[in-house]
Amino acid sequence: MANFELTKALQMTRETKIVQLVLDGLGGLPRELDGKTELEAARTPNLDALAGRAQLGLAVPVAPGVTPGSGPAHLSLFGYDPLQYDIGRGVLEALGIGFDLQPEDVAARGNFCSVDQEGLITDRRAGRIPTEVCRKLVALLRDIKLPGIETFVEAVKEYRFVLVLRPTEGQTLHAHILDTDPQRLGVPPLPARAQDKASEATAALVNDWIAAARDILKDHQPANSLNLRGIAKDPGLPKFGNVYGLRAAAIATYPMYRGVAKLVGMDVLPLAGETLEDEVDTLRIHWDQYDYFFFHVKKTDSAGEDGDFERKAGVIEHVDQAVVPAILDLAPDALVVTGDHSTPAALKSHSWHPVPTLLWSNYCRPDGVAEFGERACGRGSLGVFAATDEMPLALGHSLRLNKYGA
Amino acid sequence: MANFELTKALQMTRETKIVQLVLDGLGGLPRELDGKTELEAARTPNLDALAGRAQLGLAVPVAPGVTPGSGPAHLSLFGYDPLQYDIGRGVLEALGIGFDLQPEDVAARGNFCSVDQEGLITDRRAGRIPTEVCRKLVALLRDIKLPGIETFVEAVKEYRFVLVLRPTEGQTLHAHILDTDPQRLGVPPLPARAQDKASEATAALVNDWIAAARDILKDHQPANSLNLRGIAKDPGLPKFGNVYGLRAAAIATYPMYRGVAKLVGMDVLPLAGETLEDEVDTLRIHWDQYDYFFFHVKKTDSAGEDGDFERKAGVIEHVDQAVVPAILDLAPDALVVTGDHSTPAALKSHSWHPVPTLLWSNYCRPDGVAEFGERACGRGSLGVFAATDEMPLALGHSLRLNKYGA
Repeated sequence: MANFELTKALQMTRETKIVQLVLDGLGGLPRELDGKTELEAARTPNLDALAGRAQLGLAVPVAPGVTPGSGPAHLSLFGYDPLQYDIGRGVLEALGIGFDLQPEDVAARGNFCSVDQEGLITDRRAGRIPTEVCRKLVALLRDIKLPGIETFVEAVKEYRFVLVLRPTEGQTLHAHILDTDPQRLGVPPLPARAQDKASEATAALVNDWIAAARDILKDHQPANSLNLRGIAKDPGLPKFGNVYGLRAAAIATYPMYRGVAKLVGMDVLPLAGETLEDEVDTLRIHWDQYDYFFFHVKKTDSAGEDGDFERKAGVIEHVDQAVVPAILDLAPDALVVTGDHSTPAALKSHSWHPVPTLLWSNYCRPDGVAEFGERACGRGSLGVFAATDEMPLALGHSLRLNKYGA
Repeated sequence: MANFELTKALQMTRETKIVQLVLDGLGGLPRELDGKTELEAARTPNLDALAGRAQLGLAVPVAPGVTPGSGPAHLSLFGYDPLQYDIGRGVLEALGIGFDLQPEDVAARGNFCSVDQEGLITDRRAGRIPTEVCRKLVALLRDIKLPGIETFVEAVKEYRFVLVLRPTEGQTLHAHILDTDPQRLGVPPLPARAQDKASEATAALVNDWIAAARDILKDHQPANSLNLRGIAKDPGLPKFGNVYGLRAAAIATYPMYRGVAKLVGMDVLPLAGETLEDEVDTLRIHWDQYDYFFFHVKKTDSAGEDGDFERKAGVIEHVDQAVVPAILDLAPDALVVTGDHSTPAALKSHSWHPVPTLLWSNYCRPDGVAEFGERACGRGSLGVFAATDEMPLALGHSLRLNKYGA
């Protein structure tokens, strides 16, 4: 686990630059054909050559055997123990759609659902209504007014939406409030229940909003009711720049990852488009302004989630061609190539497997294995290590940490 | 370290099955002849083939350099940090003979000893009297009555017995009481001394019992006195089934291991006999009733303790033939082959060396090394890992843990 007191105490100002290249869901599982994983099957001459000059290992995002969500997995890469620092589901959902969440906002994930005449839940996802329908219903819900509170309702996808409450009159909202979703059928939704005294007023506001919303929805079968989950505020995480002494920037196309980067205090850089080439352009443009770049590649994960081994390998090959040489041309002092978690095509989902990781710097001890893959990393000199160690290692390898003790 | 809050929060109900095959004292040291350990020297075609499809590593039972006793070593395999969860020696000894210990009982290990006319200890083990003699003396000690307390005295082996005090009138016994054994000759046994205020009344009862017992024994040379050690109560461990969401069963021939399994809440299964084949029969009979099986093999450890390299290798070969294929025929979803600690024949005792461990599941990333041995495990992709991680890993690999966070 990264120790922020230590990195704060030891940090030095240097001109060195760090890049953490994150291929989302990078880790995979062997295919039957030849026993190779997506990463092993991909033709990656640039990553393989870099591996030959680097150290390899397997990063554990949360804990052995535990499959991480994207939020905890990225916190871990940034050095924040995800078991200690928790981003509420509502906040993640708001970040995921690029909502400009403020520190005093309370965010909740909303699910449209179906209820019968007695108000008992018959479908927790309202028959997975199309996103178009979701948008129309959300537009209706925007008419609900709460005293002293600005409300935002935003469609996400199918039956999912986001509700944000923002105080306008100097009051403080509190979000220790339980989900209304009873997680089963044949029972009514629960009221929003405060978990502490301070949250009671906010819970009352939330229940007022819910009552008004259900009144609006009552004739909109199958989405004739709703539930709120993961009611939460910005957790107020320690700031990345502060704990590591870095001017830090994020390059990511998806709102979710831009949001988590923003939550830890990185500058989120503008992009001309959503391709890898656009991301590389942004890296070049801002190279002189920052010490650290989080460079996120989304499509490895999407392909893994779709169970598409070939497409995932293809994205890795594209990164090898379009990103890796471009980063090396900029001459960073330390480069970490990793993933936030594994998304094996064989599982079509995130998984618990540790993540193949490569660390290069002018001061690394090369393992001398010119191959970047799960098996090579399984024999690598970084061993099986906590993903939260990547940042302290990168700081060390870029000469940014003072000696501890005399 | 396993995090029970995490495994409780993430556990899922599944039909999958886990087997943890524990060869007691599995780890060894190289012999001079060819530099091979017991496991490496054994002909194990089934384990080697399985290793080729599995991941290997070295499990650390307690802490680097620390030699574990059987109790802590097994707690660790079950995912209980043995530095946090402590089972007193008296409790272990009572469990070791299959005594049905109750939560309010206080148990102590007893050693008959020899004292001279001045009451100074001349032999801490009473000349290792035969077990038959031990049984006769124990029968005499059962006549001792304590007010409000039911007492049980049970023979163990040679000079060893167990004393259990059970409150009958609603009072509570406390067991922060030091050993009476001074651990050297030429001095008298110590009184039982309470370590806190709450334990003083129990210590007084224990001393009353000891005085009566010594009076009974005084003419029974060489067992003319006794000492009590490891005075303790059931530590009230979290329950295995609860923390992991598993119906768990133990298959073990020795009372000690059956006892530890019972203490963590496993069902201890009946056996028709004490052979490996009997254990396999029990596994087959109960296969459908449980999600997890702890399958314990004792004789690897006994052979190691005897310094018998060949016999230990022979037991491993027997497991390879009689147990491994039988388990694989039952088609578990995750199989861990490991040991609780090392017992190198070269040392004739438990040792601190990490334990060769193999993890197989349909979702593992095979290391591709078709050899199960200390050296192969030292290069394996599980790395050097805490034995407490075995259960979370097995849960992940049997798809029994939900995703952590969104």
